[in-house]
Amino acid sequence: MAKITDVSPLAPAGGFPSLPMIDGVRFATAAAGVKYRGRTDVLLADLCAGTVIAGVFTRSATRSAPVLDCQAKLGQLSDPTKGFAILVNSGNSNAFTGKGGVASVDALCDSVSAQLGIPTGHVYTSSTGVIGEPLPHDRIIGVMEALARGLNEVAIEPAARAIMTTDTFAKGAAADVVIDGTKVSISGIAKGSGMIAPDMATMLVYIFTDAKIAQPVLQRIVSDLNETTFNAITVDSDTSTSDSLLVAATGRANMPEITDQASDVAGQFATALKSVMMELAHQVVRDGEGATKFVQITVTGAMTQADAKKVAMSCANSPLVKTAIAGEDANWGRIVMAVGKSGAQADRDRLSISFGNIVVAENGWRAPGYSEEAASEYMKNETIVITVDLGLGPERFSAWTCDLTHGYISINADYRS
Amino acid sequence: MAKITDVSPLAPAGGFPSLPMIDGVRFATAAAGVKYRGRTDVLLADLCAGTVIAGVFTRSATRSAPVLDCQAKLGQLSDPTKGFAILVNSGNSNAFTGKGGVASVDALCDSVSAQLGIPTGHVYTSSTGVIGEPLPHDRIIGVMEALARGLNEVAIEPAARAIMTTDTFAKGAAADVVIDGTKVSISGIAKGSGMIAPDMATMLVYIFTDAKIAQPVLQRIVSDLNETTFNAITVDSDTSTSDSLLVAATGRANMPEITDQASDVAGQFATALKSVMMELAHQVVRDGEGATKFVQITVTGAMTQADAKKVAMSCANSPLVKTAIAGEDANWGRIVMAVGKSGAQADRDRLSISFGNIVVAENGWRAPGYSEEAASEYMKNETIVITVDLGLGPERFSAWTCDLTHGYISINADYRS
Repeated sequence: MAKITDVSPLAPAGGFPSLPMIDGVRFATAAAGVKYRGRTDVLLADLCAGTVIAGVFTRSATRSAPVLDCQAKLGQLSDPTKGFAILVNSGNSNAFTGKGGVASVDALCDSVSAQLGIPTGHVYTSSTGVIGEPLPHDRIIGVMEALARGLNEVAIEPAARAIMTTDTFAKGAAADVVIDGTKVSISGIAKGSGMIAPDMATMLVYIFTDAKIAQPVLQRIVSDLNETTFNAITVDSDTSTSDSLLVAATGRANMPEITDQASDVAGQFATALKSVMMELAHQVVRDGEGATKFVQITVTGAMTQADAKKVAMSCANSPLVKTAIAGEDANWGRIVMAVGKSGAQADRDRLSISFGNIVVAENGWRAPGYSEEAASEYMKNETIVITVDLGLGPERFSAWTCDLTHGYISINADYRS
Repeated sequence: MAKITDVSPLAPAGGFPSLPMIDGVRFATAAAGVKYRGRTDVLLADLCAGTVIAGVFTRSATRSAPVLDCQAKLGQLSDPTKGFAILVNSGNSNAFTGKGGVASVDALCDSVSAQLGIPTGHVYTSSTGVIGEPLPHDRIIGVMEALARGLNEVAIEPAARAIMTTDTFAKGAAADVVIDGTKVSISGIAKGSGMIAPDMATMLVYIFTDAKIAQPVLQRIVSDLNETTFNAITVDSDTSTSDSLLVAATGRANMPEITDQASDVAGQFATALKSVMMELAHQVVRDGEGATKFVQITVTGAMTQADAKKVAMSCANSPLVKTAIAGEDANWGRIVMAVGKSGAQADRDRLSISFGNIVVAENGWRAPGYSEEAASEYMKNETIVITVDLGLGPERFSAWTCDLTHGYISINADYRS
């Protein structure tokens, strides 16, 4: 049984943000009883003809049937006069379900195709929940007609709640950007990292915009931005079999199509899109299992960006670093340890480490003016920024994580699935 | 302050094993007050002339001054008529201590050299404890004369206790092997993985034998065996700045010198040495922070041994796998996840997973005869064996770990250092 937990201490104070409607995008949600009765567990998003879709997915070697299906469909356009759809269910991930899992995806796509009158190649699906159980896709097909009838443009907050499963708060973010005098809007929703019922491990992200942009350009922008946003967060270093990010651009904004990634307009759009992706990524971390602190690890002075990322992720994934933060312990020796084990080029005697603005270590030793009291006081903050300067080169990378607490153990060990 | 915890539930039932004396090896211990008064915190081992020493150390880029000093000395022989020594202190790791740390190592080696009448190049040191504090080496030098006076051949159990810091039980193992009609003995001690006071993260291992063996051959055997013993265990994926394994062979056994790694006698000796290294490695895991289960992950059917190790360590380091084991949850979906994220070549539809003798998944799905009841019953055991067959090739690797419990969080987050 899933467990009801308290709302995360790191939930946004104002609740779910107000997100703009995106011209050409409609939502509907339903309770299909995939795993639990009476819980909203299906989302259908309807996207107008002319929409282009970009996606990024888990790199897992054991990725789920819906992920493999989405990857095969990316960039395909079966009929330019027809729209697209995204169907998401919670309660079952349809992962490690063999040939039956593929058949379930096909059955769901056929059903959406029939209801909306669009090609099956235009239907993208995601599933999140338990691994290795057959997906009862008939239950979802049973609510498809009701979903199609219920589609409307304003229901993005219900959409964010429908994919929540057991997250402790709904996640949404928006941005807009003026391109050639036209306001372009971006609205995104996400679920994830609150694996409050065991196995609900997946991060799902859906972002919608009315921008007019060529699919290959959108795909490259999304793939690039993903590296410094969703691929820069970690709760517990474990990678889901189902992680999916889909970005749909309806092209309804009155603007010339963006066809060149190197153009100024592409840059303006990418900047706005990045702000939405980053905000959603941060919300996922804030809802990390048992999280009581939001932690940024910034690595500077690296020889290569790859080295900067290795060090940042080594710190962000270290159980000893994360438990020290949970204990509000300014234990910078554990940062030294995590730098050392990262595999990146590092020189002990050039390393410097700061907690907030407090330099705690430099030149291969404790900083001369180091005050344990000041550092301990800083660790009481809800947001902790740790900066590691390797002193070797110009490259940098930031990663975001949360602390490791009894809450994480309770969520994942104390309750049987 | 260090915390006193209960003895580990996985401690050996019979207590510390009876270890044979090794001809040419003497031990002494003392309480120098490195960090705490009245606690035995220094070990001196005296090794007769003719001894050869092999070592393996942490690969951390921020390794400690004593580790760097040991690495520089390996294989050096300043004076064949003189013996060797190993000096170990707990309470302070002398890591990330800049030039002062190097001066401390030199001062300690000079002191041992003067007391025992051996070259400084024959003195190896290890330090374990807090990172980034200057080592008060004068306190250790203050007890050096008493240590030299107290040297004796029988004190290997006190030696194992002297390096314990806050482990919950002393670790020792022995083996013997008859080579050319002569019995050769091997006795080893270890500390580690019970990081019960924060920062006491180091694994230290010292193994003694009267075998007669050339140093380069001993070094190659130790380096090879290390990959499948100490490098195959993990408690929390965090790597210390001070991990050290030293193997000293006094050559006092009445046997021809082993000079060829490929010889039968080298193989016989390596087999006996491996049994000691493996047993000590397992004892370190059993004393893992908060451990209540001893877990073996065996990966078979891999294309390469490197792939087998990637999968085994990915499972053994996964917080979700380890919390499931803590919760006695037969959650094989998390094993699928850990295989998928490992980076090794894997084919979902060839994968099979067993808990003990129970096949839980095969052919890309739940095994046909899978019984959740039987699997859950198996998870109640104290020792859990998980086998992952990748179905792709002939290579295999086993790793050992423990579960991830509230005890780990309490040890590392609830108590400030």
